[in-house]
Amino acid sequence: MRPLAVLAFGGNALLRSNQKGTYEEQFQNVENTCRQIIPLIRWGYDIVICHGNGPQVGNVMLQHEAGKNEFGIQQMPMDFCGAETQGAIAYLIETALDRVLYTNGLNRRVISLVTRVEVSPKDPMFQNPTKPVGPYYTEEEAKRLAEETGSVYREDPKGRGWRKVVPSPAPMHISNVDIVRRLAREGKIVVTCGGGGIPVIWDHGGYRGVEAVIDKDLASALCACQIGAEALYILTDVPKVYINFRKPDEQALDVLTVAEAEKYLEEGQFAEGSMAPKVRAAIYFVRKGGRECVITEAGQLSNPACGTRITLK
Amino acid sequence: MRPLAVLAFGGNALLRSNQKGTYEEQFQNVENTCRQIIPLIRWGYDIVICHGNGPQVGNVMLQHEAGKNEFGIQQMPMDFCGAETQGAIAYLIETALDRVLYTNGLNRRVISLVTRVEVSPKDPMFQNPTKPVGPYYTEEEAKRLAEETGSVYREDPKGRGWRKVVPSPAPMHISNVDIVRRLAREGKIVVTCGGGGIPVIWDHGGYRGVEAVIDKDLASALCACQIGAEALYILTDVPKVYINFRKPDEQALDVLTVAEAEKYLEEGQFAEGSMAPKVRAAIYFVRKGGRECVITEAGQLSNPACGTRITLK
Repeated sequence: MRPLAVLAFGGNALLRSNQKGTYEEQFQNVENTCRQIIPLIRWGYDIVICHGNGPQVGNVMLQHEAGKNEFGIQQMPMDFCGAETQGAIAYLIETALDRVLYTNGLNRRVISLVTRVEVSPKDPMFQNPTKPVGPYYTEEEAKRLAEETGSVYREDPKGRGWRKVVPSPAPMHISNVDIVRRLAREGKIVVTCGGGGIPVIWDHGGYRGVEAVIDKDLASALCACQIGAEALYILTDVPKVYINFRKPDEQALDVLTVAEAEKYLEEGQFAEGSMAPKVRAAIYFVRKGGRECVITEAGQLSNPACGTRITLK
Repeated sequence: MRPLAVLAFGGNALLRSNQKGTYEEQFQNVENTCRQIIPLIRWGYDIVICHGNGPQVGNVMLQHEAGKNEFGIQQMPMDFCGAETQGAIAYLIETALDRVLYTNGLNRRVISLVTRVEVSPKDPMFQNPTKPVGPYYTEEEAKRLAEETGSVYREDPKGRGWRKVVPSPAPMHISNVDIVRRLAREGKIVVTCGGGGIPVIWDHGGYRGVEAVIDKDLASALCACQIGAEALYILTDVPKVYINFRKPDEQALDVLTVAEAEKYLEEGQFAEGSMAPKVRAAIYFVRKGGRECVITEAGQLSNPACGTRITLK
């Protein structure tokens, strides 16, 4: 049996803040990222791709808002918007990856699933929404919206205005994850858990979408555990994990044990909303039996010793 | 082996023109449609669901336009917009169907695939775009847009303005259709070919999205053929196919042979953009070996003799 790796693409693998975000740019970005995973495929890995959707779902929410203002189209809640991004991003990944596989003479198929991820309604994060999403508002607008919708709005720490904040509950169960495993073990490259998955809770005989964002690295780690993956690759925009990041005594880490990672997390070495959730996802994966998690940038993947390897001991 | 049926849901199974289109309305509509297919499941059918996206993709295109106007977000082409609707509609169908299955004590799983459908760049429809999509414009705006983008705009026959028209090429190949077949034959209910599929052409070593709309009934018929389905159910908003529709001598048809159907099509008995493509899809399916195609409304499905059955002879 070939080893199985889950790759977590950042939302910026497609949509970069320093670009306009044209279709051509997005396609080019995802094609570049896909090209960089070819070494893993050549080394014989079966592959599952999970991906973020931060910039994309932000755009969709703005488009819904603008569509309401200009054309009176109903705005949909975040679960619906997230599902829209799953379709669009999976389509771009499938199409770009197909092309890269063909160019490299690799006969591998790509298949994408719409993926719901169950969270617990009792997750403490529902009492403490922290994840900012969607457009910026003035304080006045934010307060009016909060009253009208019951959503929570908070002031942006960088002073860019007020934004809705939603909970970021822990992923518990990934829909159809057994089928993800089976297809991946047959050699198909499976795209799943887009944007961390569409968050749903069990509610009176069925699932129901909730306004929340599941951390995509944590969803990727859960997916990797549930399909018995040997490795989890978390792709980001730096080659390694650092301590004393951007300070004179900055130090890149080649290997990081769970115990060290937990110590550094406690010391605040890793930024929240950036490296901290990635390191937490890595810890989760190796604690649950994964062999290793690698945090690196896609461009480093041709080097088998790339990135920072998080291991149990 | 259980019989296998492909169900083609109309786009109005979710979004109705006489409603506001709130999330609750859309969820209720799709839940109602899903409830009505329960008899087929009880009779032992394996099920694949294909669906339209006409009203939905129209809204997404408007939202992209408004998002550009209000926030400067790049507008994406139709293939991308169609992929967005695949994600969102599949999510609603999965969630509503899960709930209906659970309520009815049926232990069946639902799985949704993002689906590209290959069309031929030589399809004659590319020379003759006829399918109106997206917003209405004034003649002046339409002419400016046509010059800027190279797209074709035509005046709406009902005088509502000018609209972009895109080709409606024939579907040739459905991505991962072998996996659709296998999962469906295992008893999973598979959602695929949303909006007729995301149209792609083969172009220098890979697929490339094109601005086109694949007729969802024809895509459903192709899917039914390619997975060896015994039956194709095309769900619409009338209980049967009629000749002399809405005339004093209107006649509902219980059975329609391919020869009769072709004669009536030639006579112009079936409206283009409405019943005619459904009848053509039915003919396609039974000519390629399908046992029967039933055209009816979802509410009739509890009657085994419902609708109009199109058969070879």
